[in-house]
Amino acid sequence: MSSLHWEEFYAAHLPPADFEDNRQLLKEFCERHSKIHNKIVLVTSGGTTVPLEHNTVRFVDNFSAGTRGSSSAEYFLDQGYAVIFMHRQKSLEPFTRHFTGQQFFDMLDISGTDNDPGTQINVKPDSVDVLAPILLKYKVAQESQRILFINFTSVVDYMWLLRAACECLAPLEQRALLYLAAAVSDFYIPQDKMPTHKIQSGQGAPTISLQLVPKMLAPLVSLWVPHAFVVSFKLETDENLLIAKSRESLNKYKHKLVIANILQTRKYRVVFVTPTTSYEVHLTREQALSGLEIEEPIVADVSRKHDEYISAAQGQ
Amino acid sequence: MSSLHWEEFYAAHLPPADFEDNRQLLKEFCERHSKIHNKIVLVTSGGTTVPLEHNTVRFVDNFSAGTRGSSSAEYFLDQGYAVIFMHRQKSLEPFTRHFTGQQFFDMLDISGTDNDPGTQINVKPDSVDVLAPILLKYKVAQESQRILFINFTSVVDYMWLLRAACECLAPLEQRALLYLAAAVSDFYIPQDKMPTHKIQSGQGAPTISLQLVPKMLAPLVSLWVPHAFVVSFKLETDENLLIAKSRESLNKYKHKLVIANILQTRKYRVVFVTPTTSYEVHLTREQALSGLEIEEPIVADVSRKHDEYISAAQGQ
Repeated sequence: MSSLHWEEFYAAHLPPADFEDNRQLLKEFCERHSKIHNKIVLVTSGGTTVPLEHNTVRFVDNFSAGTRGSSSAEYFLDQGYAVIFMHRQKSLEPFTRHFTGQQFFDMLDISGTDNDPGTQINVKPDSVDVLAPILLKYKVAQESQRILFINFTSVVDYMWLLRAACECLAPLEQRALLYLAAAVSDFYIPQDKMPTHKIQSGQGAPTISLQLVPKMLAPLVSLWVPHAFVVSFKLETDENLLIAKSRESLNKYKHKLVIANILQTRKYRVVFVTPTTSYEVHLTREQALSGLEIEEPIVADVSRKHDEYISAAQGQ
Repeated sequence: MSSLHWEEFYAAHLPPADFEDNRQLLKEFCERHSKIHNKIVLVTSGGTTVPLEHNTVRFVDNFSAGTRGSSSAEYFLDQGYAVIFMHRQKSLEPFTRHFTGQQFFDMLDISGTDNDPGTQINVKPDSVDVLAPILLKYKVAQESQRILFINFTSVVDYMWLLRAACECLAPLEQRALLYLAAAVSDFYIPQDKMPTHKIQSGQGAPTISLQLVPKMLAPLVSLWVPHAFVVSFKLETDENLLIAKSRESLNKYKHKLVIANILQTRKYRVVFVTPTTSYEVHLTREQALSGLEIEEPIVADVSRKHDEYISAAQGQ
């Protein structure tokens, strides 16, 4: 089965309801940071959904908690980047990712009088040590307006926002970095094949026919941001396919770097695959136990490569 | 296509890795509250997933943020119940549901000296009014050990935990209430039809064949908790099917109450369908605007029905 051409995909699927608001936010963010000669990274994060019905009760989802993207966004801020954090709604976000469930509530002490029991709420002294460094970084990023949060749910939302972000990033040329960590569905259900109402189980188990999503990396690299430094990710569960499929992707799309990883070991080991080299970035057992995250060396390496790329372009 | 018998479903699918720990927690919780003659409600909440591969990258998901279940759990605590909150990982939870994204961080003020900038963290005075009543209720529930959080992801996890909870609730007889608000998949992919590795898009778009999940409400009502008050939910997108399908369910499974709702209006209106009656519970426009949640009257009504049921049994 062949996929639609990417232009046909956009023609066939309406943008999400809040698309114009997000486009305006992206435009202002990129213009502001371009003016002061900042580098901007677009970090995409989390999985996309493919609705199975128009009134969406069921959908196919790609697994991704958003760990890679949300932690990388923090390290890109440390490296001096302005960060567009484009993420799946409800996936992990930088800073807040460190706290889940009831952890926030459990850090809080409430004090007051019997008549007015809730006059003051403090973070418990032993939680301050954990929270303070993260909160301080968050406040610096917010006050310097160096992070923009944009969210998506379906693969169609993602595609519209990705193109809009590229249009806003294009004027930055080499100073734009695309770090495409989102787990984007390869498949979708065409609008005209989607039932209006919830599929009824009484009619027996349905068979779902999926269609291939066009590979947006092709127009992205060749047309939308031809001067940007583009990094894609390759997640496989089969080690034997990893390098070959990464090379195949670089040959096809002509971008700069694939960061390849195996589902089971992705928190400790990745492989950087460029058109001419491939090498491992990994954590030692000691580093992993001490709480170092692999995204710290990954982002340091990507950032260094990006700087070299900018310098090379300026030297031409 | 016919579904497996429920016993075959358990025989064919292993329990989740942390199953024994959760079973122990459920057992202790039920025994403790049974001893002091509390009523216990099992609230299930959020959607279940159906993995498409053994090494799960893709899965089919049922839409449910967990709004109904997480807010109802708070109102059941208000009504004096001990609450087992069995929810989809990362779906909304009681108390924390009121705050999303960066809202927690934005409520906090950090203060200190230049040398030590993070010595104290307080909730801003204007946020204390919002946070204090919620935090106080949370602390009361935790300190009185009246809430137990159990989480699931896949439909198989859910099925194992549901049966374990029922085994622990059965001795409470009429004092057990089951409020089954989770959006459980009707379909799954049998283990032997599931590929080991990620489906490769190069092989063209796949066709996914799903099988019906056995209806666990049947053994639940007739065998697992025959004396409990069981409430199920019916979510439809087509108004015309709503009452008919609810009646059909009551006739088939012989439980006490179906709470029926339409996807688009579920936050303002539900229909209570019993074997002999059906009536609407809804919010007026003024109530909705004032911030009243429909789960408050829903839980009040369910709780009243449950008390009548207990009294009737004692009077026999």
